[in-house]
Amino acid sequence: MRNPGKAQAGGTILVAGGAGFIGSHLCAALLDAGANVTCIDNMQTALPSNLPRLAGRDRFTFIEADITQPLPDAITADPARWTHIYNLACAASPPLYQADPEHTMLTNVVGTNQLLRLAEQAGARFLLTSTSEVYGDPEVHPQPEDYRGNVSCTGPRACYDEGKRAAETLTFDYARMNRADVRVARIFNTYGPQMRMDDGRVVSNLIVQALEGAKLTIYGSGAQTRSFCYVADTVDALIRLMDSEMVQPLPVNIGNQNEITILELVTAMEAVAGRSLDVTYHDLPQDDPQRRRPDITRARNVLGWEPTTPLAAGLRHTYDWFAGELTATAPLSAQRVA
Amino acid sequence: MRNPGKAQAGGTILVAGGAGFIGSHLCAALLDAGANVTCIDNMQTALPSNLPRLAGRDRFTFIEADITQPLPDAITADPARWTHIYNLACAASPPLYQADPEHTMLTNVVGTNQLLRLAEQAGARFLLTSTSEVYGDPEVHPQPEDYRGNVSCTGPRACYDEGKRAAETLTFDYARMNRADVRVARIFNTYGPQMRMDDGRVVSNLIVQALEGAKLTIYGSGAQTRSFCYVADTVDALIRLMDSEMVQPLPVNIGNQNEITILELVTAMEAVAGRSLDVTYHDLPQDDPQRRRPDITRARNVLGWEPTTPLAAGLRHTYDWFAGELTATAPLSAQRVA
Repeated sequence: MRNPGKAQAGGTILVAGGAGFIGSHLCAALLDAGANVTCIDNMQTALPSNLPRLAGRDRFTFIEADITQPLPDAITADPARWTHIYNLACAASPPLYQADPEHTMLTNVVGTNQLLRLAEQAGARFLLTSTSEVYGDPEVHPQPEDYRGNVSCTGPRACYDEGKRAAETLTFDYARMNRADVRVARIFNTYGPQMRMDDGRVVSNLIVQALEGAKLTIYGSGAQTRSFCYVADTVDALIRLMDSEMVQPLPVNIGNQNEITILELVTAMEAVAGRSLDVTYHDLPQDDPQRRRPDITRARNVLGWEPTTPLAAGLRHTYDWFAGELTATAPLSAQRVA
Repeated sequence: MRNPGKAQAGGTILVAGGAGFIGSHLCAALLDAGANVTCIDNMQTALPSNLPRLAGRDRFTFIEADITQPLPDAITADPARWTHIYNLACAASPPLYQADPEHTMLTNVVGTNQLLRLAEQAGARFLLTSTSEVYGDPEVHPQPEDYRGNVSCTGPRACYDEGKRAAETLTFDYARMNRADVRVARIFNTYGPQMRMDDGRVVSNLIVQALEGAKLTIYGSGAQTRSFCYVADTVDALIRLMDSEMVQPLPVNIGNQNEITILELVTAMEAVAGRSLDVTYHDLPQDDPQRRRPDITRARNVLGWEPTTPLAAGLRHTYDWFAGELTATAPLSAQRVA
């Protein structure tokens, strides 16, 4: 991972969603670089054990609050101190973001808008973490940033997909109106330590099932593809994007171009687990994308970045971390969302 | 126009955006049928002269307020009285909705959400007026409701297009969560009396230029197509949609299938004006759709509706109304937005 530039290393940085999976890695990397980091998180889907890892560190402040509500005084007082604002706040896995679709939409629209207003007041650079879900079930492969997507705005995934699209719209409008200096990352599938066990995403699902000795759940035929990026690579890209200079802000895909089927992922898991794993097939959820692979030409050109962690190594780190969590903690069921 | 069913005719109906172009016609039709009608409008883009036409009528109440702000007590007190809520609130022409893109987005998301919450409290049926803009610059012709669209979520039209998509998402989520009984209309180009002269849409632009003896402004080559629906037909469809029964709510296209080029519109205007009209060509704005034509199969099947006003007759009514406004009022410039 490249170190952040001087502005971030010496900066005072707000990370919304900083207790979440990617957010907690980002906070740690920014602290490592010397930044003052304030994390605002509503703890809706954050893994609670991520916080103690950060809370003991110098220059780290945690504020429990929901960005759909008016921002707390501790954030809005003295806005000029903020040099950078990262917005990673939103439930990101379908079962969690679909539990309260109104809240998911408002997190993306009202929450993002409040943070943009703060960036405007602060003169801070603002980075939105958007998602490959803005491409929906894509009909173009791989997906470049100018692909407009294939999203159902009426379906059960829309609260997230359309919410993120609307968050991008707001962000680019602030730039167009010269209200804020913005960056937008479209993050593709990411995996690694510090994910929730019950996150509902495929890598965490399969690892937990393997560790529990259960059959691995495959939705559909398992022939649908994903491209999995290790979280350290993703965080490296986010920090570079925040540091990057652009004549005019454009969205940047952040992901791994190594596209594999879900069944190939199972094979890679078997190598890590050191044994063969049984699978069981379930119906594909509505609007589940069939293929997903980023075109990262822009990230290569603008950020000088591409993923460097091989799948086998990333899966090994992740598997070992989950195994450690399972032995360290009480029964797995105690960690599940009620 | 078919009369509304008993529930609406005897109902207490909230019309957000009821002082606007389509909204003022809708309020009048509902009052004609016997309903109690409350209009909430922020008067951002409403034609001020629409209000006096309604304000003198029995059973009509006007409340000046912005649905991005907490709804006034006069609306939220005694919510059970509302039987139906129509949401037509949003600036709808590009120069007006792009003037404050943040407000456009929040009108669609925060405003729609507040009205949906009111519908939930009231047990009222809720109708969202969405737009053909959810299809963006379509690659499928004509556009059926299950076409997912070709919208740039980062461009200057996105505050409206993505705002409306997000409003649809919220609306269908309320239905999916059994929080409200909803209907969604996707309105294509509509024209008629009571549009603003400075609305910026093609029919009003061309009529005003013809009446002023100016050259008619054509953006691009004039070969791009639109399908123009007369406002009385549109309002008829909205009232039928509110009355309709559906097993599961689905969006319904409301528009005219008679697709013409902008240059053909000029020819139709010449017939109404009784003289040949000079034109002048300007560059096409960014993201301007090339073609737009509704597939109204669903509206035919579900509502028993199709437009009945020929273009020549509708243009004649509209032209005469604008001519009357021009003679009745002070210099045209006094009506323009500052």
